Amino acid sequence: MTASWVDGAEPGSDFPLQNLPLGIFSDDGGGRRAGVAIGDYILDLASAAELLDEGWRGDLALPVLNAWLARGPGDHAALRARLTELLGDEANRDAVELHLVGQSEATMHLPCLIGDYTDFYVGIHHATNVGKQFRPDQPLLPNYKYVPIGYHGRASSVRVSGEPVVRPAGQHKPPEAEAPEYGPSRRLDYELELGLWIGRGNALGEPIPIGRARDHIAGFCLLNDWSARDLQAWEYQPLGPFLAKNFLTSISPWVISPEALAPFRIAMPPRADGDPAPLPYLDDADDRANGGLSIQLEVTLTTAAMRDAGLAPHVLSRGSADAAMYWSAAQIVTHHSSNGCNLQPGDLIGTGTLSTAGDDGLGSLLEISRGGKAPIELASGETRSFLEDGDEVVMRAWCERDGAVRIGLGECTGRVVAGAG
Amino acid sequence: MTASWVDGAEPGSDFPLQNLPLGIFSDDGGGRRAGVAIGDYILDLASAAELLDEGWRGDLALPVLNAWLARGPGDHAALRARLTELLGDEANRDAVELHLVGQSEATMHLPCLIGDYTDFYVGIHHATNVGKQFRPDQPLLPNYKYVPIGYHGRASSVRVSGEPVVRPAGQHKPPEAEAPEYGPSRRLDYELELGLWIGRGNALGEPIPIGRARDHIAGFCLLNDWSARDLQAWEYQPLGPFLAKNFLTSISPWVISPEALAPFRIAMPPRADGDPAPLPYLDDADDRANGGLSIQLEVTLTTAAMRDAGLAPHVLSRGSADAAMYWSAAQIVTHHSSNGCNLQPGDLIGTGTLSTAGDDGLGSLLEISRGGKAPIELASGETRSFLEDGDEVVMRAWCERDGAVRIGLGECTGRVVAGAG
Repeated sequence: MTASWVDGAEPGSDFPLQNLPLGIFSDDGGGRRAGVAIGDYILDLASAAELLDEGWRGDLALPVLNAWLARGPGDHAALRARLTELLGDEANRDAVELHLVGQSEATMHLPCLIGDYTDFYVGIHHATNVGKQFRPDQPLLPNYKYVPIGYHGRASSVRVSGEPVVRPAGQHKPPEAEAPEYGPSRRLDYELELGLWIGRGNALGEPIPIGRARDHIAGFCLLNDWSARDLQAWEYQPLGPFLAKNFLTSISPWVISPEALAPFRIAMPPRADGDPAPLPYLDDADDRANGGLSIQLEVTLTTAAMRDAGLAPHVLSRGSADAAMYWSAAQIVTHHSSNGCNLQPGDLIGTGTLSTAGDDGLGSLLEISRGGKAPIELASGETRSFLEDGDEVVMRAWCERDGAVRIGLGECTGRVVAGAG
Repeated sequence: MTASWVDGAEPGSDFPLQNLPLGIFSDDGGGRRAGVAIGDYILDLASAAELLDEGWRGDLALPVLNAWLARGPGDHAALRARLTELLGDEANRDAVELHLVGQSEATMHLPCLIGDYTDFYVGIHHATNVGKQFRPDQPLLPNYKYVPIGYHGRASSVRVSGEPVVRPAGQHKPPEAEAPEYGPSRRLDYELELGLWIGRGNALGEPIPIGRARDHIAGFCLLNDWSARDLQAWEYQPLGPFLAKNFLTSISPWVISPEALAPFRIAMPPRADGDPAPLPYLDDADDRANGGLSIQLEVTLTTAAMRDAGLAPHVLSRGSADAAMYWSAAQIVTHHSSNGCNLQPGDLIGTGTLSTAGDDGLGSLLEISRGGKAPIELASGETRSFLEDGDEVVMRAWCERDGAVRIGLGECTGRVVAGAG
């Protein structure tokens, strides 16, 4: 079967039969439950339980996917096969159709109870661009090409796409000021990232070998690591970003499976001349050959004035994840657990901002506006160095190549609103 | 009532009638449930439910304290009053005694499901001592006296006292080496901290004003922020400590209530001449007058050879928390939420390492051994710069002053074992 009988699931859409991402939704007909995106619809897995293996029903009946993701690749592949049958074979239409809910009638929720959220920094062009603003002669620190740099983020403030972005207040200190002041951030930014969902966990004290890392990744999403640059510049020494980031992280709602992404795996970009080889615990032939993700990324901006005037969104960037990632998803997972740190089902890991080497695919306004020195011009006649109240950022991602059906990761959106203060 | 009829609850012990900390325990008679430490015993709140207000029973019957801590100071004070009656009045002995479990027969567990764990850096002498090793001319960075510096830690690897400390492996690069290597940490350390338990949470986007911060703190504990200094030195730029810390964090099991600590509140230490006043959002007259915690802290070390020879533990440090903390617990909570970040019931916050100004109360081996340059000598004839396999670190804390009954925070222990690798 190569196509679904469901409306909107035609090849070229975000959610054809080849995608089948899981998510958690609710609607007038019921509370939070698991569903599968197909075309313009969601297959309600709670209501369709009798069509699925009896052994799966308990975990799929929960309002979060943690237990299901923990089952690992075998059960995930089996569910995918069954869904392909149900949604691909016209003969099943009568039995399945009554369990479809229109996406436009559903509200999406976080797919998992996120135990821990970690953010990495594997986008080498982003790290270089940002590093240049602080250290023109040494943009990348000496550890960058040995260590997949990461830090812990805030799990409680991860929200699903569409959550309003309340402008954070905080301490900031302009270079010319003698002392900092507390007030609304004036340099609010977004960061374009991919997110990984952890499936199977590991026990405390037991690292995940690189050859088995991929079995612990249950899915992918888009992630917007909203950032207050003025708070960040003042607070981040010596222990890293904190309040500049933890006021909100937005993610796209659908868990895109590794099976759906399989046709878009490519080789990791070759290391540059002079770059060190990864240390053995991070080095794996299969990962070198297939650890790259050919995922297309796009970010647009629409201001309140542009909406009022009916203007099209301004494209801030277009690029691809594969060339941006110096470290693979498997290397991220193995490094994270390499000291015995335990990952748990439903943990979320961000890749770090994914910028292209060229200027068309920069993943943050900090890079696009050169730290605020080169504001962008919009069709409305407005300019932007950073985000203003009313601005809406939309991230989209998809995979396409000759010989494979396109799949979409969906959207991650957020509109800035003034803080209460 | 001023004393309990329970054995071991005499004034001078850790758990007299004036303490009454909550915790989660299990024993041969049942699974995880809430209890109150009293003398050498635990009052089993599940089994004693009929002696308590009916409205409390649901939350106190859970295997974690999150829901109970979320109720806030009113209910917490009411439970404390009822427990004082039950455990203080000899007339209740017959009804209560059958619900006591010996602490030696119980296993303690994490008191809460920890949604997020954050570690601060408010110990100014520690920050100065560590800063001196890296920047002799500027030990404290310019933001330190304005910003209560903090960063996110790992919630999944927080464990209760007694958990083995599996020596982590990781990348480390000796200064003279050309490239890093991956292997067991050679500079394993402890860090002496206090932990705060969040009770009531705040909604995303709604900061907690300084005047109300204390109502959000449901309790205190001891915390050991185990640290691999060699991993830390190599990885921490530019985003802060990560694998150097997230392999394990140990805490003492009992949630010491603000009510129990009330007699030991003192003024915050006066700011030094030339120090800036806290920004208004962190400044509160009551907090200045009563935000300090007069808690005595002690850390001991026992090596395997010392145990074999029956030698007494070596006292590494003795000091007091109050003089060490540049920022109060209330300032920590308000700063953390000042950008709208939502704190949740059961969140854990570490103060950062608490060292005294003098050399008697240094909170880590990094400080005691001057970064490894001044190893300590032990009665066994051994020396230590950092922790070796078999070493056991025991932290103890208590409060005492004239006119008040001493209370104890209990212990936080951990013994180092070799990693699997």
